[in-house]
Amino acid sequence: MSVITIERKVLQKNDEIATQNREIFTKKGLFVINVVSSPGSGKTSILEKTLEHLKGKIKIAVIEGDVQTDIDTKRVERYGVPVVQIVTNGGCHLEAKLVKDALDNMSLDDVNILVIENVGNLVCPAGYDLGENMKVVIVSTTEGDDKPLKYPKMFRNASVLIINKTDLLSYVDCNIEELKKNALQINPSLKIFETSCTSVEGIPEWCQWLERNVSEKI
Amino acid sequence: MSVITIERKVLQKNDEIATQNREIFTKKGLFVINVVSSPGSGKTSILEKTLEHLKGKIKIAVIEGDVQTDIDTKRVERYGVPVVQIVTNGGCHLEAKLVKDALDNMSLDDVNILVIENVGNLVCPAGYDLGENMKVVIVSTTEGDDKPLKYPKMFRNASVLIINKTDLLSYVDCNIEELKKNALQINPSLKIFETSCTSVEGIPEWCQWLERNVSEKI
Repeated sequence: MSVITIERKVLQKNDEIATQNREIFTKKGLFVINVVSSPGSGKTSILEKTLEHLKGKIKIAVIEGDVQTDIDTKRVERYGVPVVQIVTNGGCHLEAKLVKDALDNMSLDDVNILVIENVGNLVCPAGYDLGENMKVVIVSTTEGDDKPLKYPKMFRNASVLIINKTDLLSYVDCNIEELKKNALQINPSLKIFETSCTSVEGIPEWCQWLERNVSEKI
Repeated sequence: MSVITIERKVLQKNDEIATQNREIFTKKGLFVINVVSSPGSGKTSILEKTLEHLKGKIKIAVIEGDVQTDIDTKRVERYGVPVVQIVTNGGCHLEAKLVKDALDNMSLDDVNILVIENVGNLVCPAGYDLGENMKVVIVSTTEGDDKPLKYPKMFRNASVLIINKTDLLSYVDCNIEELKKNALQINPSLKIFETSCTSVEGIPEWCQWLERNVSEKI
């Protein structure tokens, strides 16, 4: 029995549980996004701005995935939304089973959107379906414009790209047009937003898009 | 046979080949560093500045590890140093066997330092010994000050921490003292450098330290 076979079995088992998660999400009428990025691209900051912007309009619940610590959960809790922390204890990505277990510990009544913030890793989470409606990949301008070419699987499997930290564009070596071109070369159907959590540029557009997706589901 | 057992076997096999690599490095009198970080923290930029600074003083060879593309190899080649590209084709970290194969394709005569630039990933490369003398972890100020706590294994297994992009400190939400405190809490023996590839701050200190390590080996 080779390692490759084992890996395939792990993925197959994951997909089975992801399908079960998807059924739960559909039954509850939830719109679910799996947010992925490198460490420090701004997943939690964008989530915080989103919670702030949609407060009173749409009910959001959060699953936080981290290798260690509950730092992000503490940040999110301040917004008074349901949040469950998954600590992977060294694991480099979330798996469907971990999300399923988290769901058992959440009250999702009246919730419209479930945000799953994955482990900061631009490689491994790309291959794991959690049952989400779509993956949202965040890349920050400080990471340069070549990341879609260097980590193509994540950009290929995502539906939305958020280019974050646009306020730093004048200080870093990143051509945003080149970044978009590279991303669309990998995945021509990517929906792209440009945001800054400092100036709040692009946050209203991103939130409006989220709102539209939720109302289409209802 | 469980997945855990397979994983242990993979690591055991990796360690065996890493030991062989280490013997080759020792025989050739090479000082070898395994450079790890998130995507976009500045691994290649720091390498470029190092090559520039040590030109004519110390002979450096490079192994570039990437999920896809040879963008980084092309950047490094301009400095006229021996460089071999490893494309992992989706793989999230370098393994000792890949490095061993790369060594077969390199002329390492008169080379003093071998720099192995790992795949951009703050999680998975932490567990894989490549036979190096030490891991050098880079974190950029744009990633915030909590990364050592959230990705502890990488900081625990590294000997050197380079805090890069210090020129952006006034624009980002990162307390550098807190970052250093968090890193030293995980690994009190970390040697820390603060660098900027824009202002070149800290590059001479980092290069001097490298030079000292090489001369101690000779």
